[in-house]
Amino acid sequence: MLVNGYPTQPLSGVITAMVTPLDRDCGVDYRGLERLVEHLIGGGVHGLFILGTTGEAPNLAYDVRYDLIEQTCKLVRSRVPVIVGITDTCHQGAIRVAIKAQQCGAYAVVAAPPYYFHVPPADLRHYFQVLASQLPLPLFLYNAPLNTPLWIDVDTAVQLAAEPNIIGLKDSGLNMGYLHAVREAVKGRPEFSFLVGPDELLAEAVLLGAHGGMAGGSNVWPHLFVALYQAARAGDLPRVGELHRQVMQFDQALYRSAAFSANPLRGLKCALACLGMMREHMTLPLRPYSTEERTKVEKFLKTVDPFAPPAGS
Amino acid sequence: MLVNGYPTQPLSGVITAMVTPLDRDCGVDYRGLERLVEHLIGGGVHGLFILGTTGEAPNLAYDVRYDLIEQTCKLVRSRVPVIVGITDTCHQGAIRVAIKAQQCGAYAVVAAPPYYFHVPPADLRHYFQVLASQLPLPLFLYNAPLNTPLWIDVDTAVQLAAEPNIIGLKDSGLNMGYLHAVREAVKGRPEFSFLVGPDELLAEAVLLGAHGGMAGGSNVWPHLFVALYQAARAGDLPRVGELHRQVMQFDQALYRSAAFSANPLRGLKCALACLGMMREHMTLPLRPYSTEERTKVEKFLKTVDPFAPPAGS
Amino acid sequence: MLVNGYPTQPLSGVITAMVTPLDRDCGVDYRGLERLVEHLIGGGVHGLFILGTTGEAPNLAYDVRYDLIEQTCKLVRSRVPVIVGITDTCHQGAIRVAIKAQQCGAYAVVAAPPYYFHVPPADLRHYFQVLASQLPLPLFLYNAPLNTPLWIDVDTAVQLAAEPNIIGLKDSGLNMGYLHAVREAVKGRPEFSFLVGPDELLAEAVLLGAHGGMAGGSNVWPHLFVALYQAARAGDLPRVGELHRQVMQFDQALYRSAAFSANPLRGLKCALACLGMMREHMTLPLRPYSTEERTKVEKFLKTVDPFAPPAGS
Amino acid sequence: MLVNGYPTQPLSGVITAMVTPLDRDCGVDYRGLERLVEHLIGGGVHGLFILGTTGEAPNLAYDVRYDLIEQTCKLVRSRVPVIVGITDTCHQGAIRVAIKAQQCGAYAVVAAPPYYFHVPPADLRHYFQVLASQLPLPLFLYNAPLNTPLWIDVDTAVQLAAEPNIIGLKDSGLNMGYLHAVREAVKGRPEFSFLVGPDELLAEAVLLGAHGGMAGGSNVWPHLFVALYQAARAGDLPRVGELHRQVMQFDQALYRSAAFSANPLRGLKCALACLGMMREHMTLPLRPYSTEERTKVEKFLKTVDPFAPPAGS
Repeated sequence: MLVNGYPTQPLSGVITAMVTPLDRDCGVDYRGLERLVEHLIGGGVHGLFILGTTGEAPNLAYDVRYDLIEQTCKLVRSRVPVIVGITDTCHQGAIRVAIKAQQCGAYAVVAAPPYYFHVPPADLRHYFQVLASQLPLPLFLYNAPLNTPLWIDVDTAVQLAAEPNIIGLKDSGLNMGYLHAVREAVKGRPEFSFLVGPDELLAEAVLLGAHGGMAGGSNVWPHLFVALYQAARAGDLPRVGELHRQVMQFDQALYRSAAFSANPLRGLKCALACLGMMREHMTLPLRPYSTEERTKVEKFLKTVDPFAPPAGS
Repeated sequence: MLVNGYPTQPLSGVITAMVTPLDRDCGVDYRGLERLVEHLIGGGVHGLFILGTTGEAPNLAYDVRYDLIEQTCKLVRSRVPVIVGITDTCHQGAIRVAIKAQQCGAYAVVAAPPYYFHVPPADLRHYFQVLASQLPLPLFLYNAPLNTPLWIDVDTAVQLAAEPNIIGLKDSGLNMGYLHAVREAVKGRPEFSFLVGPDELLAEAVLLGAHGGMAGGSNVWPHLFVALYQAARAGDLPRVGELHRQVMQFDQALYRSAAFSANPLRGLKCALACLGMMREHMTLPLRPYSTEERTKVEKFLKTVDPFAPPAGS
Repeated sequence: MLVNGYPTQPLSGVITAMVTPLDRDCGVDYRGLERLVEHLIGGGVHGLFILGTTGEAPNLAYDVRYDLIEQTCKLVRSRVPVIVGITDTCHQGAIRVAIKAQQCGAYAVVAAPPYYFHVPPADLRHYFQVLASQLPLPLFLYNAPLNTPLWIDVDTAVQLAAEPNIIGLKDSGLNMGYLHAVREAVKGRPEFSFLVGPDELLAEAVLLGAHGGMAGGSNVWPHLFVALYQAARAGDLPRVGELHRQVMQFDQALYRSAAFSANPLRGLKCALACLGMMREHMTLPLRPYSTEERTKVEKFLKTVDPFAPPAGS
Repeated sequence: MLVNGYPTQPLSGVITAMVTPLDRDCGVDYRGLERLVEHLIGGGVHGLFILGTTGEAPNLAYDVRYDLIEQTCKLVRSRVPVIVGITDTCHQGAIRVAIKAQQCGAYAVVAAPPYYFHVPPADLRHYFQVLASQLPLPLFLYNAPLNTPLWIDVDTAVQLAAEPNIIGLKDSGLNMGYLHAVREAVKGRPEFSFLVGPDELLAEAVLLGAHGGMAGGSNVWPHLFVALYQAARAGDLPRVGELHRQVMQFDQALYRSAAFSANPLRGLKCALACLGMMREHMTLPLRPYSTEERTKVEKFLKTVDPFAPPAGS
């Protein structure tokens, strides 16, 4: 699928933004990782995105990140592409993680803007151009304005899409107009991949032409998100409507208040722990859901079967 | 369609958030108003929303607002429902505008949160409950977080949807997940109307079950937005894709930088002036587009015919 | 003190941003107004600023605003200057309030940026230039970024300070660096008045050369703020330190959470009601403090005597 | 000055938030570092704060941070206390840097909130409590709301000030009311140190009782900031006014637009390069000032002598 190192088709489908299973000391929980990888591939997802926001990447020590890359690639055995988050305030750190990803056989890397200093758009563009030129793997841009002080505005995204080593955009802003605008401007590169972050926007993104999503919810219920993607791809609107409502109920049950950007990943880890897939250890300053919140998640999980396709499939 | 003063079905379709044609002294430009009303009804829109953000309402003196209500209702002659914005920092002012709307035969009123003080969600809910209980017409909630410091969060919207006199929600935030979440929670009231504000979100809102939109762009090109609405309603995805791309090109040409919330209405008034429908007078602090910007709008308008249905209809 | 309609010296001292005493129907409470005016003048304040944020101006109907201007000027009998807020989203409304103020003998008017649309800095500057040229009284700029979406940046403030009819700046942002920067750039106009909004910044503003403040807290405890102003003016640092700590305790007791911009005026109205000076009626969406909050305010008020100078005077 | 590892007096004076001199590969520029350290100690500063925002810490690789700590402590030779920034999204990384600081003889460490995830205040408090309990050196809290998505609110700061190993607060927000409120609430711990970040707030902070500041501008002109601190400490208001105006001119000349939080450190590095003290290399995404901007800085530097006390000393 790669010609001279570049893809000839956009990466498509459900690429799970994977939770990082951790042990008590915030190292990789190998058995949890194995269970999660098999759950996801068994659920039909089209790729794994490790070391993103959902993976708590900025909070993980580098040796843990390296270990996660190595173990995940080993467990996946090329069944699906693995893409690796390298977002970092330290440019050298980003490069080193990318080199590790390349050595382990990852498909591509993903970078959001560095998340400490506020710089002008021209300096952000320069940053990504330098980064792309130094990476051993193709790069997905990652617009993540809920977590980074800088966002990749439409003009910047369009200019960066002219770099051959930049092969796609993951948008985790909540404004679909942004993704529509960039897609319209980059239509001359049909192999450029447009993926949407939030669970609740997967359906409409695909209906209107995006290539898929990195929905965090697919960690728990991969079948649901794969079925929703396929229904949207096939233009089966009644089925999309039905599955989309299941996604809305799922999000409502797991993520609770949207006031804190950490809540979705707290909810996901809670659910995966309830399912016996891993323990609930998280990196500071993140903390597991309270007992009260966990009880609600448990109750909800009794109404769905994360290991089976949604009804009607 | 009203039983005991309440609708039995949701208001649906393209409800144009109408530009206010003004003369040099910022009074109503009657001839411009007549031309615009005929353009819109001739273009097939399903309703008119006057005195919204696009109508510069907060900047208009009350006598001008009263005049606009009276003239618009007279010109429309009940061919389509007229709904009237009453958003105000002054509670008494909102009530008075609503009484005028009722006297002139308007269908409903629309209110966003009062836009000066930051108050807790409970006080905002109380505000809308008091307002709804005093209004002579049914009320649409208007979530407009780009212009008002307070937004109507999901819980508040759901609680307010239990008031019989509140009959719908217009959402001009940019996060479709918000509209999906409120819709999911209010599904027990099938006559409750969900309308989306931004042009570029009309397609996906309707595809996923919302009832229509108040797209500002329909001031200029009503046929396009009506056709897009109908294609989405009919589930004709290829046609939706094609028309949606025209909307994206239209927005890109008219609204330019999204950095300032006033730009869309500046672009719309510029385009309507280029088409000879009205002059470009605006209320301070708004100012018409520069000559350079106007030239770009004129150039674009040569590529579309705002008086004809889009190609393929 | 005015030559050709312009002041030859900066307005100085404590200019109380006055609470508006209201009756049940949100009209002016005349007896409350009289008591408050006498309390403030008796407490030694150097001027009254009516119809500002603390006066709930954006929420008051125009006839109530006119009435307040008339009654206040009548009660004050020129003992201190009265300045009048005209901030409005409607340009014509602002002009009309200013005309009323001029007719009643007010000293000057105050305008913050119109608070609905986001426009570029050049358009905001144009707005103030047009406004200043049409006003029958000199104008104070009012930078109020906590309540208005637009703020008057340093460059804009400096450019506007070149207009002869603009005679001062009230800054209610919280960043003293802003006020220092504008003062430094406008040092060529020694009669230009720099006043600071927040209670807790009065001391340092005056110590470093500003002319005074519009502290809301002086509604309740005018003697304290006047004494603090005088100590700062005299360079009596130990006395400043002592009185400043009393201000901090006062704010902490009355304003509580700073999360909502409406809290200071809720706290002030609560305290004035506890003191029997007025009832606690407020304009929607504002609501009086809860019983629990009121109890705390009452308890605090037993530790201070708002009608007497602070200890040590 | 330490009893059982804790200070008995607050750290006071001008503690320079030190620029990090870098070579072409973003390693430590040893000669530049030596020149800068001697410039600062020669200029009379009371301490050095390395690896803060001004030091580009989040962008530096860990080995570079370790090297900087070691070299700086060696060069300083205990002439002034060295405090070390450990702010990190990775908890383990913060601990490791603190251990290095302790081994090299640093006085204390400084931590701002981790800067990626948004978590509730209770989780932020828990984070700092865990961190403080694990550190081998006393901790200064660092409130840096311009760069971190979380801020340490008044209640959280007050609760954390009860931890014995937390010995001070550096506030780089711009709202002096915040610092006043925390100081008022923590007055029972006289050895707790309150330091202010921004150059332009040093004077008023010290006049009203804070212990000093970490003004970035003191990298270039240490004598000026030391003289300002001493004048404020001595209550010499005319001298404070004069020196404060020099600081405002200095900031205006070096920092330009405040729109981007990176500008102050770009301006400082530019000035230090103009003075021949180091080269202008910066870590991505930061970039040196343009030639045009540099010319302005050079021009300004001809009007001041950074190696001499300000006139009047």
